[in-house]
This record gives sequence, structure tokens and C-alpha cells, in this order.
Amino acid sequence: MTGRLAIVGLGPGAAELITPLAAETLASATDLIGYAPYLARVPERAGQRRYGSDNREELVRARQALGLAVSGKFVAVVSSGDPGVFAMASAVFEAMETGNSSWKDIEVTVVPGVSAMLVAAARVGAPLGHDFCVISLSDNLKPWHLVLRRLEAAAAGDFVIVLYNPSSNARPWQLGDALRLIARHRASATPVIFAHAVSQKDERIDITTLRDADPVNADMRTLIIIGSSATRLVICGKDRRIVYTPRHAELVEP
Amino acid sequence: MTGRLAIVGLGPGAAELITPLAAETLASATDLIGYAPYLARVPERAGQRRYGSDNREELVRARQALGLAVSGKFVAVVSSGDPGVFAMASAVFEAMETGNSSWKDIEVTVVPGVSAMLVAAARVGAPLGHDFCVISLSDNLKPWHLVLRRLEAAAAGDFVIVLYNPSSNARPWQLGDALRLIARHRASATPVIFAHAVSQKDERIDITTLRDADPVNADMRTLIIIGSSATRLVICGKDRRIVYTPRHAELVEP
Repeated sequence: MTGRLAIVGLGPGAAELITPLAAETLASATDLIGYAPYLARVPERAGQRRYGSDNREELVRARQALGLAVSGKFVAVVSSGDPGVFAMASAVFEAMETGNSSWKDIEVTVVPGVSAMLVAAARVGAPLGHDFCVISLSDNLKPWHLVLRRLEAAAAGDFVIVLYNPSSNARPWQLGDALRLIARHRASATPVIFAHAVSQKDERIDITTLRDADPVNADMRTLIIIGSSATRLVICGKDRRIVYTPRHAELVEP
Repeated sequence: MTGRLAIVGLGPGAAELITPLAAETLASATDLIGYAPYLARVPERAGQRRYGSDNREELVRARQALGLAVSGKFVAVVSSGDPGVFAMASAVFEAMETGNSSWKDIEVTVVPGVSAMLVAAARVGAPLGHDFCVISLSDNLKPWHLVLRRLEAAAAGDFVIVLYNPSSNARPWQLGDALRLIARHRASATPVIFAHAVSQKDERIDITTLRDADPVNADMRTLIIIGSSATRLVICGKDRRIVYTPRHAELVEP
């Protein structure tokens, strides 16, 4: 009596960014599992069971979800943003691959969502309008040397760079190191965006430069976008600032 | 009598992936502008004017949209996927920066959408579950040497790589060169996904490997995802194949 499991992207926060497919999947599920603040965004439905958890227990949560699905439930694992980008989908597939063999028979689907980086970019213009890299700065699950190697590669390739998980109480110095590394490759006037809690009540978007970017202004809910050599800051109207990366590009010597 | 302009992401095709904010913005606009096949996805509303165009006229279309907005209209520029990723948003801001100075007073907003890469990834599992790069293979607006440099950097950084615009009649050999370059850095069994027309009627998703990837199977509507050294192909149930990149990673020598 194997059930189903859907890993559902809620988008970054606002209800107006949840797709109809995600809303419908959440409404159909018998059981919802997720980090408690994400679960709280989903409308209550009578008869539906909810399992809220701590943010750090991704694999535990994934196993719990698979266990419920194998018993016949239709389980929705809720994820902020898109579930495939530094979120729950990888954890579920890892649990599936390494866990009970019966879990491999569960029908698992991923319901995509609007990822936070797309909303952060939209708020300031179109900084991701050309080739870009997306890097998690967290060294909880990968060695810091790999992060450094990827930052070097992204800088060498003159990519726009999106940083997820830039800072936390347990990882206070990594963002400063990352910004200094990139500043060795790029002009100090390169636009940098600190996007805090995008599309949520306490959203705050700051446009700064590589010279003035202060790591203290970032935490686990901040997403950072660093321009390439082509990224432009344009002043429009009364002090409105737009950041965009043009569609055309030239080869700039590193 | 300056109007407004919204650059709206329709998602990759299916109506169930259009956000409520996008649907509402499209319904409120007085004038819709876009590539004709994208415009055709938007429900008709009486009194609304529509301007369909060819796909190559991005800057012309952007200027037309700004011209209408400055005359007092509420213009929606429609874009497939997310408007900020290799789509219309950059063209609009470029037109705004370089065009008539009155255009800078127009209130321009970007309404994000689910980008095609997120849906392509969702179809096969979670290949974008760890650090990744997004590169347009088109050398219409950038020198091929810059594309090569970015591919080299992405390979050196062991990033998962997403390729937009991999191939067209006018650009038949670039994808083969790109795949050969990456094959010099990665195992021949590395998973490669060819995602054609995601979430549209003729969607076709092929999972292959770097060894067997055939450029002939790609065109302008194909998106390609190439795994990192960590990306895994897992066989589940009856010949169902899942591709995911684990949340943890090790430093692999290039």
C-alpha cells in the first residue's frame, strides 16, 4: 500500500508567488512535513496531519516523510523557494537512495517553486540577466576549501555570483573571506545586493558595492548577489537605483 | 502622464506554474507585448491590446513597451520562465538606460516566474541540489571565447552546469565543443539531462551521460544540465531513474 510523496516549493514567502500546482498539491496531501515556519505558511485543512520540525534535521525529516508515504499516505514535504535549490529535494532523494529498499517504490514528485534568488533579482532589476553561479557559503556539509575553489572559479569566469547561506552565528567569518576573495578579481565599484527575507514582511533590499559590502548585514535569511564586470547600476527617476547585467558581454581580462 | 511597465514571467509553459501575481498583473495590464507564442499563452481579455513580435527583436520590443508606458498605458511585457534569466528584463533595462530620458521616470517592476531550469531539474530529481552555474551557449551577443572561458571555470570549480540556448540552426557546432571541453574535466559516466520544452505539450526529458550526450538532440527549446563529480544517478522501482546532487560534497582534484 505504497503512497505518494511530493516535495513542494512554496516560493520565498508571499502567497501571491505560490503556483497553483503547489497550492493544489498541498491541499490534496494527507500529511504535511517541514520546517515549522514554512509549514505555518500553508493554509490549514481539516483532517490533514502536520509535522513541524527544526531546520537542521533535513535528513531526519526526509526519512519521516518516506516512512509515512510507504504506509500509504500522500505526503507533502514543504520547502521554501524552490525545493531543488539548497532545499529539501536532495535530502529526500538521499534518504531514498540510502534508506529502506521499499522506499524506492514510492512515487516521488518535485513541485517547483519560485526560488528566492529570482525574487531578489527582480526587486533590483535584472542582475541575473547573464551567466551566473549559485554557491552556498555554508561549510557544514562541504569543506571550506571547496567553497574557496568555487569562488575562485566563479571569479575567474567573470560570472555574476549568488551566495546562499552567507552567514550565521556559527559561521561568522566566511562571508568576509568570500567578499575579499572576489574583490581581488573585481572592481571595487561592482554592485552587490543584500536581499534579506525576500517577499516576507521584514524584506529589506540593500544595493551596495564590493568596496562597501559589510558582512555584518547578512544572516541566514539573506541572499547576496555580486555583479560581474558587466553588471550596471543605473540611477532612474528620483534616486531609484536599478541593477542589471546586459545581454551582451565582452571578454574582460581577469 | 507616465504609465507603468511590468515584465512578467509566465513560467516555462503550463498554466499551473503561473503565479497568482503574474496572472493578476497580466489581467490588469492595458497592453501586452511579447514574442507571439508566449503571448498566446495569456488568456484574452476584452479591451486589452496585444503586440506580438519575433523572438529576435528583444530591444525593439523593449523600446516599444517603454514608448507605450510613457504615453500612460499599463504595459505588461511577457517573458517565458523567469524574466530575469536570459529573457526580457535585461533588454528592458538596457532600453531604459540608453533610450529617451523620459523613460527613466516609468515605474518598472519585474514579476518573477518559475524558470525553466527549476522545472527541468524537478522532472528528474534534484540535480541543482548543490552549487551550480548557468551559462547561455549563444554567441550572438558575446564572443565564443568568453563562453569557453566560463565553461572552463565552471568545470574547474566542479559546478553542476546548466546550459541555456544550447543549439540552433545558426549555431550547430557550439554544443559539441562545449560537451567535449567539459568531458576533459569530468568522468564519462557523469549524468547529463536534455530537457526539451519543459511543461509544454511536447515536453521530452532524456537522461544520458557525458559519454553518450548527442548534440543533435538539442535545439533552441532544449535546456541541458550536466552533473558535477558528486551528482548521482539512482535507479528506483521499475527502471525509474533519478538524478540528484547531494547536499554534502568533498573536494575532488580537478
